[in-house]
Formats: sequence, C-alpha cells, structure tokens
Amino acid sequence: MANYSLSAIKPGVEMSTRSFSRSIPHPVTLLSVSDGVNENIATMSWVAAVSRKPPLLMVSVSPKRYSHDLMLRAGEFAIIVLTDARKNLATLAGTHSGKESNKWDMEEFKNLKQQAKQVKAPVLKHCGVVLECRLVNHVPSGDHTIMIGEVIHASGKSETPPLILSDHKYFKLGSFLEKYP
Amino acid sequence: MANYSLSAIKPGVEMSTRSFSRSIPHPVTLLSVSDGVNENIATMSWVAAVSRKPPLLMVSVSPKRYSHDLMLRAGEFAIIVLTDARKNLATLAGTHSGKESNKWDMEEFKNLKQQAKQVKAPVLKHCGVVLECRLVNHVPSGDHTIMIGEVIHASGKSETPPLILSDHKYFKLGSFLEKYP
Repeated sequence: MANYSLSAIKPGVEMSTRSFSRSIPHPVTLLSVSDGVNENIATMSWVAAVSRKPPLLMVSVSPKRYSHDLMLRAGEFAIIVLTDARKNLATLAGTHSGKESNKWDMEEFKNLKQQAKQVKAPVLKHCGVVLECRLVNHVPSGDHTIMIGEVIHASGKSETPPLILSDHKYFKLGSFLEKYP
Repeated sequence: MANYSLSAIKPGVEMSTRSFSRSIPHPVTLLSVSDGVNENIATMSWVAAVSRKPPLLMVSVSPKRYSHDLMLRAGEFAIIVLTDARKNLATLAGTHSGKESNKWDMEEFKNLKQQAKQVKAPVLKHCGVVLECRLVNHVPSGDHTIMIGEVIHASGKSETPPLILSDHKYFKLGSFLEKYP
C-alpha cells in the first residue's frame, strides 16, 4: 500500500498535537449497555487491553455521549470487536445518538440482536468477538472518562479479521508478517 | 485475507477471557523514557488515545517492566507509533530487558537515535510518528498500570502505514475502505 498518507501530517510540517489520535491505529468496536430500563449501542474506537490477570480493558467515553452515564448506572457493558464486514454498523451507531431514539430498534441491529451471557445489554451475533464486562473503575481524563471493565465473558467465532480505524478512516487488516515472539 | 483465523478462538468453542486481548487489534509502539540518569526503550502495544482536549493517550505498563518506575520518576515519556517497516525494532526492544543492558547502545537504535523536542528521552527518526508526553496520571489496573500522558509535541512524516498487532501477530494495515463520517 504505497499510497498511504496520513492526512494529519503534511510533509515537512510538524504535526498538531490536536490530531495525534489519527496517527494511532485503533480497533473499531460497538459498545452495548443497558441498565435494565434504558439501553444503547454506540461506536467506540479508543479501546485497548490494560491487564491480563484479571482480564481488563479500557474504553474512553466522552461524558457528552448518551452511553456515559448509562454505563455508570449499569455497572456493566459489552464490547463487540467488529470484523471488517461490519463497518456499516459502526457508521450507523456512530452517526445516531441514543438520546434521540433507541438504535436497537433499527433493523440492522434488531436482526443480529442476541442475549449476552453475563450482562443485561444485548449483543450482536456474527459481528466479531463479544467481550462482556463488569465496570470496575472509571477515571475522568481530559474531555473523556476512561471506563475500565473486567472481561467476565468472551465469545465469538471469528474467521474474518478485525476492522481498523487509522487517520479517521476504515481499513482492512493487511497481510500477516510474523508472530510476535 | 480469507484465511485469517484468530487462534484464541476455536470454532464452536467459547473463548477464554484470559486471551481476550488477542482479539483486539492494537498498535505497535516503542516507549522511550529517561529520567536524566537512566533511559530505556521498550515495546508497548496496549496504547490508545483517551482525550482530545487536552490531547491525552494511555499506555498500560506492567510494574515488572524496567520502564514502569522509570516513567514515574521521569514524569515524561515518548511513544513512537511504528510503521510496518520497523517491526524488527519492536521485536528487538520487546525481547530484551533494560534491566540487563541499555538497549540504546544497540546499533539498531543508536543509528536512528535523535533528540526529542520536549522530553529528555531520545526518540527515533524515520520510524513513525513521535508523540512526546508529560505524565499526568497513573492508575494501577490489575497487573498493569495505566500511564496517562498529555501529548505536548507530535512529529513525523509518515507515508508508510502503521504496524498492527492482532492475535499476538504482526500485520500490515490493509486496504482503505472508506472515511469514517
């Protein structure tokens, strides 16, 4: 892919710290959360593993997002690591707010909806790996809150590679290079 | 890439929560840190943006790693988001500990070493985007510590795509699909 060019960086010009996040490749995930009364599904890309034992991940969520307070009330959530076939769901969930309507009522989500094993929030089948989490900590950090979840259930039969967000663009995962030692 | 198969997941079998991190694609970065006396360069993959204003990123570091206490003492660090041409540096830094010898003395690092703009730690030229950070918070989380850095300087002229770690394997970034809206 010789024509990759990070638009945040102009040749010979220093990069703005404002656009630093574009230079880090991130996964594309859907966050599903329900407190038993209200539910939401939202696109989240600032997601990473943070501990092996216990298994913890973090997702950084803006307090402006409908999911933010819902996560704090629910004390649990699910992260669906999307495969590249599912980028349309990320765009759909990322461009509608749960404040206006319940995205779970949309055909695209309703058709793939299934019950999770350990959390109240519904999850999606055939979309990637599902990581069900118990919220164990939350840390306000700048204009977002780092939500830390313990992975209490993991499932998925993924034979399609995960979708990547880099430079605010969707990419497929490319060729295998080698195993990390 | 039809033959992608996440080895953490056996078809029809539920995944272990222990191996959940393999199912999340992560960037491959080098962490450089110096407290003015001691310095280190180490491979870190659990890295993500967490705030836009101020620009914050997180890197999750095990207390067993030589970099851990060095970061706390230094109060600053740099993250180099590696391009796919530099996977050998990630393997090199990831398989040697700074406890035994200074990896900056290795030819591979010495030849690319250059002074950072805002932090004491040296950085690397021609390897990817360099994000210089001031440590603003650290949060013990399971068997790691989430180190939160404010990006105070960003530089790089990247026309090669970033390297991805997925399922404990290096991958190239694949084909561009579309812009995130």
